[in-house]
Amino acid sequence: MIIIMDSKATDADIQAVISALDERGYGHHVSRGVERTLIGAIGTPDGEKQAMSDRLMTIPGVERVVAILRPYKLVSREHQEETSTVYIGTAAFGGGHASIIAGPCTVETEKQTLEAARAVKAAGAHCLRGGAFKPRTSPYDFQGLGEDALKILAAARDETGLPVVTEARDVRHVELVARYADAIQLGARNMQNYDLLKSTGEAGIPVILKRGLSATVEEWLKAAEYVAAEGNLNIILCERGIRTFETITRFTLDLAGMVAAKQETHLPIILDPSHATGHHSLVQPMTLAGLAAGGDGVMVEVHPHPDRALCDSIQQLTPRNFEKLMERVGQLAAALGLQLG
Amino acid sequence: MIIIMDSKATDADIQAVISALDERGYGHHVSRGVERTLIGAIGTPDGEKQAMSDRLMTIPGVERVVAILRPYKLVSREHQEETSTVYIGTAAFGGGHASIIAGPCTVETEKQTLEAARAVKAAGAHCLRGGAFKPRTSPYDFQGLGEDALKILAAARDETGLPVVTEARDVRHVELVARYADAIQLGARNMQNYDLLKSTGEAGIPVILKRGLSATVEEWLKAAEYVAAEGNLNIILCERGIRTFETITRFTLDLAGMVAAKQETHLPIILDPSHATGHHSLVQPMTLAGLAAGGDGVMVEVHPHPDRALCDSIQQLTPRNFEKLMERVGQLAAALGLQLG
Amino acid sequence: MIIIMDSKATDADIQAVISALDERGYGHHVSRGVERTLIGAIGTPDGEKQAMSDRLMTIPGVERVVAILRPYKLVSREHQEETSTVYIGTAAFGGGHASIIAGPCTVETEKQTLEAARAVKAAGAHCLRGGAFKPRTSPYDFQGLGEDALKILAAARDETGLPVVTEARDVRHVELVARYADAIQLGARNMQNYDLLKSTGEAGIPVILKRGLSATVEEWLKAAEYVAAEGNLNIILCERGIRTFETITRFTLDLAGMVAAKQETHLPIILDPSHATGHHSLVQPMTLAGLAAGGDGVMVEVHPHPDRALCDSIQQLTPRNFEKLMERVGQLAAALGLQLG
Amino acid sequence: MIIIMDSKATDADIQAVISALDERGYGHHVSRGVERTLIGAIGTPDGEKQAMSDRLMTIPGVERVVAILRPYKLVSREHQEETSTVYIGTAAFGGGHASIIAGPCTVETEKQTLEAARAVKAAGAHCLRGGAFKPRTSPYDFQGLGEDALKILAAARDETGLPVVTEARDVRHVELVARYADAIQLGARNMQNYDLLKSTGEAGIPVILKRGLSATVEEWLKAAEYVAAEGNLNIILCERGIRTFETITRFTLDLAGMVAAKQETHLPIILDPSHATGHHSLVQPMTLAGLAAGGDGVMVEVHPHPDRALCDSIQQLTPRNFEKLMERVGQLAAALGLQLG
Repeated sequence: MIIIMDSKATDADIQAVISALDERGYGHHVSRGVERTLIGAIGTPDGEKQAMSDRLMTIPGVERVVAILRPYKLVSREHQEETSTVYIGTAAFGGGHASIIAGPCTVETEKQTLEAARAVKAAGAHCLRGGAFKPRTSPYDFQGLGEDALKILAAARDETGLPVVTEARDVRHVELVARYADAIQLGARNMQNYDLLKSTGEAGIPVILKRGLSATVEEWLKAAEYVAAEGNLNIILCERGIRTFETITRFTLDLAGMVAAKQETHLPIILDPSHATGHHSLVQPMTLAGLAAGGDGVMVEVHPHPDRALCDSIQQLTPRNFEKLMERVGQLAAALGLQLG
Repeated sequence: MIIIMDSKATDADIQAVISALDERGYGHHVSRGVERTLIGAIGTPDGEKQAMSDRLMTIPGVERVVAILRPYKLVSREHQEETSTVYIGTAAFGGGHASIIAGPCTVETEKQTLEAARAVKAAGAHCLRGGAFKPRTSPYDFQGLGEDALKILAAARDETGLPVVTEARDVRHVELVARYADAIQLGARNMQNYDLLKSTGEAGIPVILKRGLSATVEEWLKAAEYVAAEGNLNIILCERGIRTFETITRFTLDLAGMVAAKQETHLPIILDPSHATGHHSLVQPMTLAGLAAGGDGVMVEVHPHPDRALCDSIQQLTPRNFEKLMERVGQLAAALGLQLG
Repeated sequence: MIIIMDSKATDADIQAVISALDERGYGHHVSRGVERTLIGAIGTPDGEKQAMSDRLMTIPGVERVVAILRPYKLVSREHQEETSTVYIGTAAFGGGHASIIAGPCTVETEKQTLEAARAVKAAGAHCLRGGAFKPRTSPYDFQGLGEDALKILAAARDETGLPVVTEARDVRHVELVARYADAIQLGARNMQNYDLLKSTGEAGIPVILKRGLSATVEEWLKAAEYVAAEGNLNIILCERGIRTFETITRFTLDLAGMVAAKQETHLPIILDPSHATGHHSLVQPMTLAGLAAGGDGVMVEVHPHPDRALCDSIQQLTPRNFEKLMERVGQLAAALGLQLG
Repeated sequence: MIIIMDSKATDADIQAVISALDERGYGHHVSRGVERTLIGAIGTPDGEKQAMSDRLMTIPGVERVVAILRPYKLVSREHQEETSTVYIGTAAFGGGHASIIAGPCTVETEKQTLEAARAVKAAGAHCLRGGAFKPRTSPYDFQGLGEDALKILAAARDETGLPVVTEARDVRHVELVARYADAIQLGARNMQNYDLLKSTGEAGIPVILKRGLSATVEEWLKAAEYVAAEGNLNIILCERGIRTFETITRFTLDLAGMVAAKQETHLPIILDPSHATGHHSLVQPMTLAGLAAGGDGVMVEVHPHPDRALCDSIQQLTPRNFEKLMERVGQLAAALGLQLG
């Protein structure tokens, strides 16, 4: 931490900062400039840096406290320099590998899910997705089939060999989802559901952690740190759009933020162009853009009959359009030297 | 719903929309204009309007679907015209009454909490707040004392008579919090934790529902509808700032949004200037502003020694500053004809 | 400036920073911590701090450069501690005084403008506003009457005695507006029109500088610095809402940002609840809120017949509603010890 | 327009809407539903739709007015279905062609500019950029060399054959810039400088119109309409990032918004990854992403010695890195069937 004193800070103010640092076990180093005095806090005693920074801010004459170290450790590139490769079943994410996760928004029936699974498998997808516990903004909307959906997904895996990804919406779902699925997805609105993060960390299976609608990259990595701190580093981050003033797309897909995040963390990052844009016509351009930018995979919604889907009809691709998408993905991957799957 | 066809829509496209409406039990009314054909969907069959709207959007020639009805019912002014008055213990919120909730960010010790409780009681507060289960952005920060904190809060109520408000962070806390506290608070990051909303609705005690960092007023009211749909209408909404590009304050307190929300819902709305601004020097001006705008109460953080607090030192008022605040609040309330408590 | 080196910076990297500082005339002070080396740049050679900071960022091993000093001078409280009082004619803004500016969005006819002027004068307003050069988002919308409008405004001043405020949209309007009006308004979309800022600074008459839709407080004050740098410190800032994801109001009125800005600058700040909210029903609550928060005045749109206005019908008050507003403003000002006019 | 009456609207309210429509020359069509009455306004009398919509909103019982038609014409795909190809000199943008514009942020000296021009030419760029009139957020920063810079750019064109693009910051620069350059750039902060838009429209030479920091796609297209309405359809739009809460990049590059905008307009759209991200390490990934998404070109900052640049050191590429970028661009274009230049 660097404590920046304001231009009117007195010697007594400076001394008060030093005493506060002493009391908590920090060393200090004072540097008196022409217009400002700076105090460097030395050492990082155990406990809470944020709280200490806040406390210092209450001392008269303190203008600002600048943090020097990052607020996450295990997920940072300082902790591990090379990019991690995380596996969901046999599908690899990161370290030059990109995998495609595809399937319906929601598991509606066994027939619909199997149809989708076969179609995405045939087109070259590496994992199957499908919602069992749906987070819905209205209590009057369809909330998912729960465990029945999990059984259907497991059956689809048995038939197609595709590893299965599905969302846990609540701590009470974690164990259940872990029993059936190959990876647990945590939704954007749950990115800061800390109890759910911890439970998922404890469960130990691969986690797909979506970025919150209004989460900074730093907060996203701090959320991942909650999972990592439980000993689970099988984490794949997923950029799914942030909320901005622009409404022509449902959210604003932040690909530059994804790349900047990859410079900070060794964890692989994929993107979800379906939820980010909310429109099927934008899924192919954004998939290609995301992979060209260096994304480690893509999650795409595919439904055998989008016009009859129980939710998110607009953003789901038909099997035919997914096939076309995979063709273009293949061309792009070849040109860029990216390994699929 | 109104379905707006694009300028190149064919008769077959229009017919496809009509068939889709028929199939789901809607009537229809076609209006052919010079530049666009509009189709009004008549009736509101049970089930999901959003899903139907999305499905219609997949039909060729459909440019846009405009919803006519609001996506929430029980909390709307269409359902109940007059503003509700909700009570936490004896403190009234709404319908011309405004109450002040005050206390420390976190319950740290019995001594600290009792000291805060006595001070805010003496200065005229109507409820006591204090965190037992703290949602923290970093796993390495202090997470609260849990049930011990609840016992301390109950003791503070016994001594001061102040009703007690505290946060439940997870479904597993709801029953526990309901046993000790007079109202359950749901945090901004949990506004769309749907399972928690339902549990809290079922618990039946008063709920303070904070607005999510990036939640629109519409989404906030839909979240409240989750609680209401379980039969619990003892809901107080709390504006606590939204996330914007501006960082001179921690969040952007949206007072105009609060007033606009009050035009939509009969539920009372309070504000939390401490979390919204993140700085003690902004708490008094924003408290006065919020009450002048028509807010039904305020939640303010007060700590006997902010410079030693375990979290949020910068935003907590000293007892002396809270006393000054309450004096100004009294003058304002008198001038505006607002009943405190 | 403090240069924070990354954890892998070598001695050669550190030396490169020192050389770069030397070359530009800065002194330096190196502080080697356990995890990071910090380099303090000493002295502030003439020229561009931002450019220097950017250049240092290109040196390998530099993680971050933290600015110590504020990027504006003349408008800051470091330059002048006490709040300025700025006058438009006889109306005072700041230093315990708040004035009310009222009038139609646009000057449409002499009759309409005089009717509005008489009404706002009778209700107690201190200045008259009215648009002559309108910035419109569509080229097909009414763009204002230009110099004819300026003449009408001058006639209204002659009759009512109210000083007149109107907008200059372009450098070519500045001289003209200065000839007729008592203050020049610069619109939100022109906040970073630097040539216009300079021209207005040179013109020397009072300026109302609206905050840009997406301007941070820091950028707003830097824009004011452009005017001040030309020797004109008769600047009144005007908070008029920022663009956020929330659309229930047209913009998000940032009252906490206004108060935080007042802690940074000695310039008075008023608010424009009409444009910020876009709805007449929100004007009164936000006016009261803004004054309760410490605003130095309010600009309100009033039209004799809003239902016939050539623009912004929704947000303009009727004379009757403005009268009611002024009554409440009087009560509030009395309670808070605020001097009107 | 569709006028949606609220659930309590009376027959008199409905009649008032009809009278207002009649008076202004609109036909009408009333549709009484179970919960709401809708009134369709028929015909589009000349004049201002937005003003009419606003006026209707002042009538009691009117809940909402929904616009049916887009607020821009000449630039829309309804007006022209196929994508336009716009030329700057010989460089083509749109219709399957993408061109690369490269050069320094600012023209500093003849030597620096020629060095940059030769380097980008050698690496395969199609146009040269360089700032003569710089919009700077601080009055104390370097503001550009003005006409001297224009002469240097012209000299660089003479030597390399690259067409030249440079910014006009003010109406007074338009004629001058048009005399020396092959295209006029309008900056993000000037996107709603309507007088500048008109002047540039009148000048008739190709225009690069950057998206405003907080402009919606709709507002961006309305700004382009200002240029088009003067008879100039040689418009290239440029996505350069919008302002959001995320600060790890300077702005948030909105590639999905770019693709959505291309569905609305026939104008070509390019991107500026240098200004959008603010960091050279993000320029290559975002260039590839933008072209993969369907962008019609890229504008990239290249400086012979970024560490000595007078501004924006961090985001400018070295000639060597630009060369690498162009290699990757070549591979990508080949894979996607995109014609460069």
